Amino acid sequence: MADSTTYGGDPEGAGGAGTRVAATDTDERLHELAQQLRVDSVRAADAAGSGHPTSSMSAADVMAVLLARHFHYDFARPDHPGNDRFVLSKGHASPLLYAAYKAVGAVTDEELLTFRAQGSRLEGHPTPRRLPWVEVATGSLGQGIGVGVGIALSGKRLDRIPYRVWVLCGDSELAEGSVWEAAEQASYERLDNLTLIVDVNRLGQRGPTRHEWDLDAYDRRFAAFGWHVVQVDGHDVAAVDRACEEARATTGRPTVILARTVKGKGVAAAENREGLHGKPLSDAEAAVRELGGSRHVGVAVQAPPAARSPQTVPGGDLELPRYDIGDEVATRDAFGQALTALGSARGDVVVLDGEVGDSTRAEYFAKEHPERYVECYIAEQQLVADAVGLATRGWVPYASSFAAFLTRAHDFVRMAAVSGAGINLVGSHAGVAIGQDGPSQMGLEDLAMFRSVHGSTVLYPCDAPQTARLVAAMADLDGVRYLRTSRGASPVLYGPEEEFPVGGSKVLRSSADDRLTVVAAGITVHEALTAADSLARAGVPVRVIDLYSVKPVDRRTLREAAESTGCLLTVEDHRQEGGIGDAVLDAFCDGGPVPRLARLAVTTMPGSATPAEQLRAAGIDAESIAAAVRLLVEHAVR
Amino acid sequence: MADSTTYGGDPEGAGGAGTRVAATDTDERLHELAQQLRVDSVRAADAAGSGHPTSSMSAADVMAVLLARHFHYDFARPDHPGNDRFVLSKGHASPLLYAAYKAVGAVTDEELLTFRAQGSRLEGHPTPRRLPWVEVATGSLGQGIGVGVGIALSGKRLDRIPYRVWVLCGDSELAEGSVWEAAEQASYERLDNLTLIVDVNRLGQRGPTRHEWDLDAYDRRFAAFGWHVVQVDGHDVAAVDRACEEARATTGRPTVILARTVKGKGVAAAENREGLHGKPLSDAEAAVRELGGSRHVGVAVQAPPAARSPQTVPGGDLELPRYDIGDEVATRDAFGQALTALGSARGDVVVLDGEVGDSTRAEYFAKEHPERYVECYIAEQQLVADAVGLATRGWVPYASSFAAFLTRAHDFVRMAAVSGAGINLVGSHAGVAIGQDGPSQMGLEDLAMFRSVHGSTVLYPCDAPQTARLVAAMADLDGVRYLRTSRGASPVLYGPEEEFPVGGSKVLRSSADDRLTVVAAGITVHEALTAADSLARAGVPVRVIDLYSVKPVDRRTLREAAESTGCLLTVEDHRQEGGIGDAVLDAFCDGGPVPRLARLAVTTMPGSATPAEQLRAAGIDAESIAAAVRLLVEHAVR
Repeated sequence: MADSTTYGGDPEGAGGAGTRVAATDTDERLHELAQQLRVDSVRAADAAGSGHPTSSMSAADVMAVLLARHFHYDFARPDHPGNDRFVLSKGHASPLLYAAYKAVGAVTDEELLTFRAQGSRLEGHPTPRRLPWVEVATGSLGQGIGVGVGIALSGKRLDRIPYRVWVLCGDSELAEGSVWEAAEQASYERLDNLTLIVDVNRLGQRGPTRHEWDLDAYDRRFAAFGWHVVQVDGHDVAAVDRACEEARATTGRPTVILARTVKGKGVAAAENREGLHGKPLSDAEAAVRELGGSRHVGVAVQAPPAARSPQTVPGGDLELPRYDIGDEVATRDAFGQALTALGSARGDVVVLDGEVGDSTRAEYFAKEHPERYVECYIAEQQLVADAVGLATRGWVPYASSFAAFLTRAHDFVRMAAVSGAGINLVGSHAGVAIGQDGPSQMGLEDLAMFRSVHGSTVLYPCDAPQTARLVAAMADLDGVRYLRTSRGASPVLYGPEEEFPVGGSKVLRSSADDRLTVVAAGITVHEALTAADSLARAGVPVRVIDLYSVKPVDRRTLREAAESTGCLLTVEDHRQEGGIGDAVLDAFCDGGPVPRLARLAVTTMPGSATPAEQLRAAGIDAESIAAAVRLLVEHAVR
Repeated sequence: MADSTTYGGDPEGAGGAGTRVAATDTDERLHELAQQLRVDSVRAADAAGSGHPTSSMSAADVMAVLLARHFHYDFARPDHPGNDRFVLSKGHASPLLYAAYKAVGAVTDEELLTFRAQGSRLEGHPTPRRLPWVEVATGSLGQGIGVGVGIALSGKRLDRIPYRVWVLCGDSELAEGSVWEAAEQASYERLDNLTLIVDVNRLGQRGPTRHEWDLDAYDRRFAAFGWHVVQVDGHDVAAVDRACEEARATTGRPTVILARTVKGKGVAAAENREGLHGKPLSDAEAAVRELGGSRHVGVAVQAPPAARSPQTVPGGDLELPRYDIGDEVATRDAFGQALTALGSARGDVVVLDGEVGDSTRAEYFAKEHPERYVECYIAEQQLVADAVGLATRGWVPYASSFAAFLTRAHDFVRMAAVSGAGINLVGSHAGVAIGQDGPSQMGLEDLAMFRSVHGSTVLYPCDAPQTARLVAAMADLDGVRYLRTSRGASPVLYGPEEEFPVGGSKVLRSSADDRLTVVAAGITVHEALTAADSLARAGVPVRVIDLYSVKPVDRRTLREAAESTGCLLTVEDHRQEGGIGDAVLDAFCDGGPVPRLARLAVTTMPGSATPAEQLRAAGIDAESIAAAVRLLVEHAVR
């Protein structure tokens, strides 16, 4: 059939040629497929000795209908631009997903039974790091819908390809606020290419959900948020089919299908029973019998329509903004300017704002490239979810807010790392240096947060040219990239040709007689230089390192400084834990000699004050640095 | 008047005795009060040279009505148990709050003009650390309503005092998902003692909000979430008064008053104008004239009804669970058991669950003390907001979820520290040791996150008796307290009489010949002991320290170990950044000698595997430790 994918695979395991359920097959055949998905969910969890079969069984009919009748996908070509996208927000129902992969012939029965074993692609919760058909890692609930919105946004506004995004989520996860951030954006952006299916099986992990089977409660909420809502018996395949049809026919807004289901459906001993979440069935063999036994039934998924890869705006050469040494420029300004230039050079750069674009300077980009600028309003979780969704489609997203408020999206950032998503996050208004606004607006924990993210890069520039170079460089890195910018202006230190490799640093003051090394980044570089110059005049030469790459750190330069000067003093506009003071240790944790270490950081709770007063009060200004150096040098002499 | 508070203050500055607006005064007098609040907002921001006068002016009429007619509060006794509670969720409108404090006579005109100056109590965003009438620090939007729900929950279910909670928020912050977590809980818990007033002034920071003046959009959403909704012209004092009356008369559900307002109201040049957010008016003098000039008008706030401090359930002696050395007990089990015992000994302990109480073992508490157990469902931001709200009322909250999912509430934890709130957070399922479920469920960044929180305590017990002691000890600490628990069983190491002071550690293996020191905590303590014993048999004695107190660390013991053994090897089931490896440095950052350091931590992205396989794959099991020790010892010999 021209409209269905065909590919290799084990016909016995995955359903022989004559046993594939197709779109035109009867509802009874769909039911058979659903039962097989249940059987395989039970078998996989049983083989693993753990997992979530009952959460899979509730959604098996929905999955069967989706696969056979509505999902358009080429499993042999997961990068096909016309493919629909499927996100399993309730990632713990992975047995169902893997059973589906078996039904379409993408995995064998043998592989299915490796579920949750070490080295298996079939992890407890699905991740795209191992499986090409998975868009995004799930398992932290309430995130799949947000990422689905990001993908749908891409299809609607950027790719301009008519694929559909299908998200399957659980009912308990609707309590997560992130779901409503996503719901709000989806209707506002008129994402009629998005369908959310909620598996309302009444039971969460520890017992009934807040609304149990009150589908009207969910209906009212989604309708109020501007969605088209369909309620359906989630075990009635004909009804689910009609609901999906209705979703596809609905224009101008997203659709949610509220599917009333029974957890553990199909096995009487498991149906609607508390205490069975996340456990294999006690008697899997009997359960499989009750489900009608294993069938040789697969499914022929319809092929996606022909589509070209997204057309990006043709770019030009990258012409970064230029600054003269000594100019006073805030690094947030340089970020906005460089980002705008990058957007002109690269058609794949997309910018996301958390309703602070005037402050972060992301709005500079909006003026030049409005078609690639998305206003996410004050919803930082969705801001990051959009970035992850766009990244799955090959875009290079830059999402920015105040550094302090990116903490709001910590779990999304963590999961982005599990996905291996390549996203750029930029946090402005770093540290006490913002001044009067006070601690609620100060990013003082962001370096710790982003350093701890697996595979992340953490950059903290001190002047405009450095910022511009790093903004461009981060685009092509892997994983989560974080750039920290400052509110106030600071003098340009570097010339336009200076290079700033990620993992590097700059030695700004150095002599053979240096008594110690001051390691700074961002705003404190300027304070360190002032201190160094006054100390030099007083006969106490010190080395100054600009550690603009906080992760990875420049081990070689730090070790040279340690050998030459014997002591490193770190100075940072950040909490003392997890920031630059700790990052320096990355160069000295191999069991070799460690230099003497001291650190200046923000150890009190600031109030309101001018930027200069704040730096002084926190003990990270030039005078405090000079005083600390004197103390350390005297100490060493004794 | 018996029903109004009277107290000292400057009658000229705060309104003389005859010029206090009272509940029974005319609407015209309320308007005068509102104008004065605007005048003082303009003046305060002008004096500061920064701040948010336009965001204050939109809500001035609402504030006037609230103060004069509906708020019951004794400003001379902020700890009066019968006081209503007010939360300014739009914390940037602090000029309005401080103008109100002046109007009630709580601050002088002179202090008002110290707004945002260093050392002033009147910070850019209000915090309870400095002002006794502020319940909670705000300034990160979308948090005030959540905390308000926590306070209202306390009034309804725990204090059982009929105070009302009034939350004033902005329209732009309704985009935060946390608002809808709060909205959901408020209606579910039938919090008719809670009124949310939304200042719908159409403009966010960088321009129009998503829904601008479409009050119906907000109306539909709140109504769908089960709230009683009143729409009102926010500048019509009579209408606002009626709305507040209606809120107070509504039973069984919370009320939201959607107040249509104009940003910058009262000054033509500022009204409804973009680009003026967060800026003083350009001509404050003219603005004050336009507002009718300064008036000597104050307000007589009605006194709260007599009320007794909350009656807590009488407690008994604390009888912690007892375990025998060698028993296999998971620290999460010990947490649940100790918490239950603590709940019997102390009537002020309240437990909050994020729909994982069966996994965290918080449900043990629920069985004994259901009246002090709150199910927050899967909404970690609201979980922490509830804890903060309860803490403002003197309760000792323990909120728990998976450690991984507490990252969801990072910004709430950060703001709890700004508030100085005393809350206990417990994260279970730490590290790769959980096994098959995979990385989405593994807490691998939690130590970094909690260490970076100002004033926090971070505890990570390795066995059941230690867990039990620490669960009890954390109740009486200041600030944010975090305890990390493990999923799997581990052997009991300590006897029932062993003490575990916060800031301490335990030396579990020690000899005069120790070649280095292994520093471990939690699960890795057991691996370290196994390694140490096998190394000892092989003639390589090593010291083993159980660093159960990750913050603060036991500097003395670590320094002694450094002096004796010369090298510290940290081993942790956590990312290498920000955890135990970095925490150890807290003992060596004073410029003195630093021992050689090495660390074993989780540096890869785990998949599914058994707990033992995970520890091995991450290189933090006993064999990996022993191998690392051998390498380090040889290295040192060379």
